[in-house]
Amino acid sequence: MGIKFQQKYKVPYYETEISGKMKLPTIFNVALQVSGEQSTVLERSDEYVKSLGLTWIVTEYLVELTRLPSFNEEIIIETEATSYNKFFCYRRFTFKDEKGDILLTIDSTWCLINTETRKPAHVPDEIVAPYESEKVRTIKRTEKIPALENYRHKTYQVRYLDLDINQHVNNSKYLDWMFDSLDYDFLATHQVETLHLKYVKEVYYGTNIESRNKKDGLKTWHEIFSNELNAQAVIEWRKNEI
Amino acid sequence: MGIKFQQKYKVPYYETEISGKMKLPTIFNVALQVSGEQSTVLERSDEYVKSLGLTWIVTEYLVELTRLPSFNEEIIIETEATSYNKFFCYRRFTFKDEKGDILLTIDSTWCLINTETRKPAHVPDEIVAPYESEKVRTIKRTEKIPALENYRHKTYQVRYLDLDINQHVNNSKYLDWMFDSLDYDFLATHQVETLHLKYVKEVYYGTNIESRNKKDGLKTWHEIFSNELNAQAVIEWRKNEI
Repeated sequence: MGIKFQQKYKVPYYETEISGKMKLPTIFNVALQVSGEQSTVLERSDEYVKSLGLTWIVTEYLVELTRLPSFNEEIIIETEATSYNKFFCYRRFTFKDEKGDILLTIDSTWCLINTETRKPAHVPDEIVAPYESEKVRTIKRTEKIPALENYRHKTYQVRYLDLDINQHVNNSKYLDWMFDSLDYDFLATHQVETLHLKYVKEVYYGTNIESRNKKDGLKTWHEIFSNELNAQAVIEWRKNEI
Repeated sequence: MGIKFQQKYKVPYYETEISGKMKLPTIFNVALQVSGEQSTVLERSDEYVKSLGLTWIVTEYLVELTRLPSFNEEIIIETEATSYNKFFCYRRFTFKDEKGDILLTIDSTWCLINTETRKPAHVPDEIVAPYESEKVRTIKRTEKIPALENYRHKTYQVRYLDLDINQHVNNSKYLDWMFDSLDYDFLATHQVETLHLKYVKEVYYGTNIESRNKKDGLKTWHEIFSNELNAQAVIEWRKNEI
């Protein structure tokens, strides 16, 4: 396991949804900011990585959620680079309450791409060494998410402010679109229990995307689709206690 | 003038646009969070105000902008309730860089509404006393924004995650829609110099809104329109230095 890095965070009102709980897409943003802070401390900032002609992308998230943080709650966000192989780096995020009880965990998969060709690159030891994560031979295989048939869908425009400093659509937007394609009443009365999200292909500004979903009881399947498949997810939900 | 309240803030990557500068809609969010913190310190939190059957709404913003904060920049956000009369409270926000130089100012106008009737209420002295702002007789009159004719427009759906803990569309979304109705090339090469934004009527979930704009050189006029006028703005822009 790698070096652990922690930051405190207080949930502002504008990152909450109507229930007063923190929005899940925002949780990804905050998590990635914390890993960025660790990288800066370890002298492996995005600028450093870019100076080698490379950039990080997240390919996959696995979330297990006990409870979402609430408005004004002071939480602890812990992260560590757990292991890596030739192609992928694995990083865990743990969100804890003030007492140290776990609110949620995110297991994320990252790869490096060449900034010019946008093709995957091997992970150089010099980039990952300071994190002290374990080098492994095996590539983690996660469950395959089946292509959707007989889905419902909603269409979205990619907006100018969906793009961030990395010049592409902010990662969290895909989940925004997925959530929003579900009914208001379902969203207002249910909470995510587990989430498996795969990024397949970047969405570009100027395109319209279809957010497709299929629902079976407390399980939903999602696709973000433009001219091609951009992202997929499976979510297990539980009903809110009243 | 009232009691001043300050907080430090470090700009995270997910609040930046492609230029690496902080998004203006997000600046409103962060500003309002800081005024909320001051209210909590002064024992005038939103919960307290709600216990009196009232809630705050912002009716108007006037922004003067020298420079937007950048990614990772550590800034100081200062706020004070400057004055109030029977119907309105006036609050200023000043964003400063680390050296104390002013980046931007926001003059905001607030009123209280009855949570049940949604009608404006008089400002009770007991709510505003702790801020030590000056009681004045006059109501500030700002420039009237003319109704748009021969406008261009883009249509947007109100999304579930546009709603925040206050159960209504987050204030910053109106500006999101206004910006997004302009061309990519214009947004990527220009920066706001002054902004005058008026909230007229709340937008509700489930409605589609039209973001209308008209442009004349470095000035743009905006309307958010559903079945009625929801918000208006005038923005003066300047070209980015290259």
